[in-house]
Amino acid sequence: MDSRRAESFSDGVFAVAITILVFNLLPIASDTAGLPHTAELTWRHLGHYWPAYVAYLVSFLTIGIMWLNHHTMLAQVSRVDRPVLVLNLILLMGIVALPFPTALVAAHLAGGPAAYGQAKVAAATYGLVMIVISVSFGCTWLYVAGHSHQLGGSSVIRPRALHTVRFTAGNIGYVAATVIALVSPVTSLVIYALLAVYYLFEHLPPPQPAEHE
Amino acid sequence: MDSRRAESFSDGVFAVAITILVFNLLPIASDTAGLPHTAELTWRHLGHYWPAYVAYLVSFLTIGIMWLNHHTMLAQVSRVDRPVLVLNLILLMGIVALPFPTALVAAHLAGGPAAYGQAKVAAATYGLVMIVISVSFGCTWLYVAGHSHQLGGSSVIRPRALHTVRFTAGNIGYVAATVIALVSPVTSLVIYALLAVYYLFEHLPPPQPAEHE
Amino acid sequence: MDSRRAESFSDGVFAVAITILVFNLLPIASDTAGLPHTAELTWRHLGHYWPAYVAYLVSFLTIGIMWLNHHTMLAQVSRVDRPVLVLNLILLMGIVALPFPTALVAAHLAGGPAAYGQAKVAAATYGLVMIVISVSFGCTWLYVAGHSHQLGGSSVIRPRALHTVRFTAGNIGYVAATVIALVSPVTSLVIYALLAVYYLFEHLPPPQPAEHE
Amino acid sequence: MDSRRAESFSDGVFAVAITILVFNLLPIASDTAGLPHTAELTWRHLGHYWPAYVAYLVSFLTIGIMWLNHHTMLAQVSRVDRPVLVLNLILLMGIVALPFPTALVAAHLAGGPAAYGQAKVAAATYGLVMIVISVSFGCTWLYVAGHSHQLGGSSVIRPRALHTVRFTAGNIGYVAATVIALVSPVTSLVIYALLAVYYLFEHLPPPQPAEHE
Repeated sequence: MDSRRAESFSDGVFAVAITILVFNLLPIASDTAGLPHTAELTWRHLGHYWPAYVAYLVSFLTIGIMWLNHHTMLAQVSRVDRPVLVLNLILLMGIVALPFPTALVAAHLAGGPAAYGQAKVAAATYGLVMIVISVSFGCTWLYVAGHSHQLGGSSVIRPRALHTVRFTAGNIGYVAATVIALVSPVTSLVIYALLAVYYLFEHLPPPQPAEHE
Repeated sequence: MDSRRAESFSDGVFAVAITILVFNLLPIASDTAGLPHTAELTWRHLGHYWPAYVAYLVSFLTIGIMWLNHHTMLAQVSRVDRPVLVLNLILLMGIVALPFPTALVAAHLAGGPAAYGQAKVAAATYGLVMIVISVSFGCTWLYVAGHSHQLGGSSVIRPRALHTVRFTAGNIGYVAATVIALVSPVTSLVIYALLAVYYLFEHLPPPQPAEHE
Repeated sequence: MDSRRAESFSDGVFAVAITILVFNLLPIASDTAGLPHTAELTWRHLGHYWPAYVAYLVSFLTIGIMWLNHHTMLAQVSRVDRPVLVLNLILLMGIVALPFPTALVAAHLAGGPAAYGQAKVAAATYGLVMIVISVSFGCTWLYVAGHSHQLGGSSVIRPRALHTVRFTAGNIGYVAATVIALVSPVTSLVIYALLAVYYLFEHLPPPQPAEHE
Repeated sequence: MDSRRAESFSDGVFAVAITILVFNLLPIASDTAGLPHTAELTWRHLGHYWPAYVAYLVSFLTIGIMWLNHHTMLAQVSRVDRPVLVLNLILLMGIVALPFPTALVAAHLAGGPAAYGQAKVAAATYGLVMIVISVSFGCTWLYVAGHSHQLGGSSVIRPRALHTVRFTAGNIGYVAATVIALVSPVTSLVIYALLAVYYLFEHLPPPQPAEHE
């Protein structure tokens, strides 16, 4: 299959998944509306929902930067075969699921000391979904890099070892953050954000002209 | 009409429909949030919603693999006419509706022995929607294969009889699973998952160069 | 602006709007779930929500066929200017709003004799949104047909008078159905469905080669 | 990265975000449905929700016209680099968030004199999100215009000073409207609508052939 169609479908899924994140904010509007006599909307009230905004920010950056790297990955080949498509489908399954742990974090991080145990479960669930995403991304990348010729890659993917190590290193970060979530949920959320920014800079190698080898 | 535009629109609908499946998970986050004093989020609590995760997985695979085969089908022709578009619209109507029986299964499969009758209705409804999808896919395929020349197919769709039989054989699987749902809802869900995987391997013939005939 | 980008954006909006229609079905799943001891899901229960299924069907056909004709319209030109884009934006505003009256019809048509007055308001609101869609579609078509040369139309849009009359005739149908909705909501819903099917057959003229003139 | 893919992803996000605005209308349908004996749907009832319709209209126009200008901006270059992509991601983060303040305005503007303080918070929040969108759009534009050659701009972006001043002038409008929101929420909503229309006419310069310089 032409890799352009796989990209086009993936782009659509990424675009919808990233937009769906706003649905974690919409209940804030209707919660505060409620019945006329209980309706309250003050800045303090809006500020009370800070975990929802933070979770929105972190997940938006994560999905957005994941999209950047996803594009860079598929741009290196001109065809995709069934294994790539299946790995890609598992990756998308994780991306699409991300609004769920985002909602868990948004709903449970601001619960105060009494809800501290819940915040841990929420933040750890977020980490588990990120591990699924990160591992399936790594597998797709390893497969694409290893079958570059077969997939009609117009470029040679050379510095494979180094980039693969660095790239999949992020996986360890997500495992660590998930464990940390069981101790300090807020710290793990900071790590998730830092990992997204890390992937912004430590991205996949750009396609290189074959004649340079 | 150029088949690319029909693909592009279908891709968009597939992408949105597959992403909408996460909406069956979001209520888990807000249900468990509830009011501060009743809020509870433990691993046991999250595990309680296993049918929602299983239903998400099965429907995600079903729509994703359906997209793969949908693309393979339309890649064989360069034009589409009104009958193809109408058949395609009916197919998409089924795809878009799939989150509904998915939600039914998610909500009713974990209800315990008392809710066993409900689980049967939910799983059977899932099967009915899958039959609509499967039959309309089969009809679209039969029409496209039979009008290949007229639709500017650059390739000859040769081993029609065999592939058509195998492909539409899945329909019988969905009818059987729907009947089984009335006895054992969980078994039917397993069959739905297996049928999705079956379609991953037993797909449509790849376009063949015309000169090989 | 290249008309392809306007088509691409419109396609996206059509695809999302048509998929959002399933959100009118999702509450059926969670309503029937409710608390464990009140949960009930029987075939009779599901059948109770027939207006939701009918409304889904009618709106899906309407948006789907509207997309077909929207494509045929834009395929006749290669460029779009600001007036086309603004008219197109108003058209999309109506398309995106359609799930709202669809939800009104779904919620109020099955209310029994006591809710008959509500069904009238719901069905008439549906008609009002359809009039906005139909009129803005007609205006866009008149503008595109009248500025064909200026918009780089590779084809001559010849039998303008006849087609324009027939096409905009649908508008009168929607006005009539809206008035009828105030007497018999179900009848108006049937007319909405028939109008969608009418537009399937009585579509815009296909692009004609310029040399035939 | 080819600017077409960035456009394609952005188009998807714009299309979903603009369609999501209808979710602020859907609760009107289910609120009015309620339980059978309390269900009420009259024209007066529907009219009661006028801020929801006005907010839908203003946000739809804002996102739609923002899309037009976003396209004009990216059409001037053929490549995008990481800074453009990151700025674009921040812009999209604002666009996707817009349905949230839209929901706040929809829920709190019609609350009557008692809810006047709430309407101010809602309208000011709307303004704050618009400032984020407007500033990030301005920054993206300044970067694209300043790196036109580097980004493979086939055209020269000449009258930069004037257009940049005029274009970013809108930012001041949004800041002013946000301050006014704290006094008169309805007035600020009118200004938001006028600013959207302003951007329709006072758009970015069209790409100019390089030889005209």
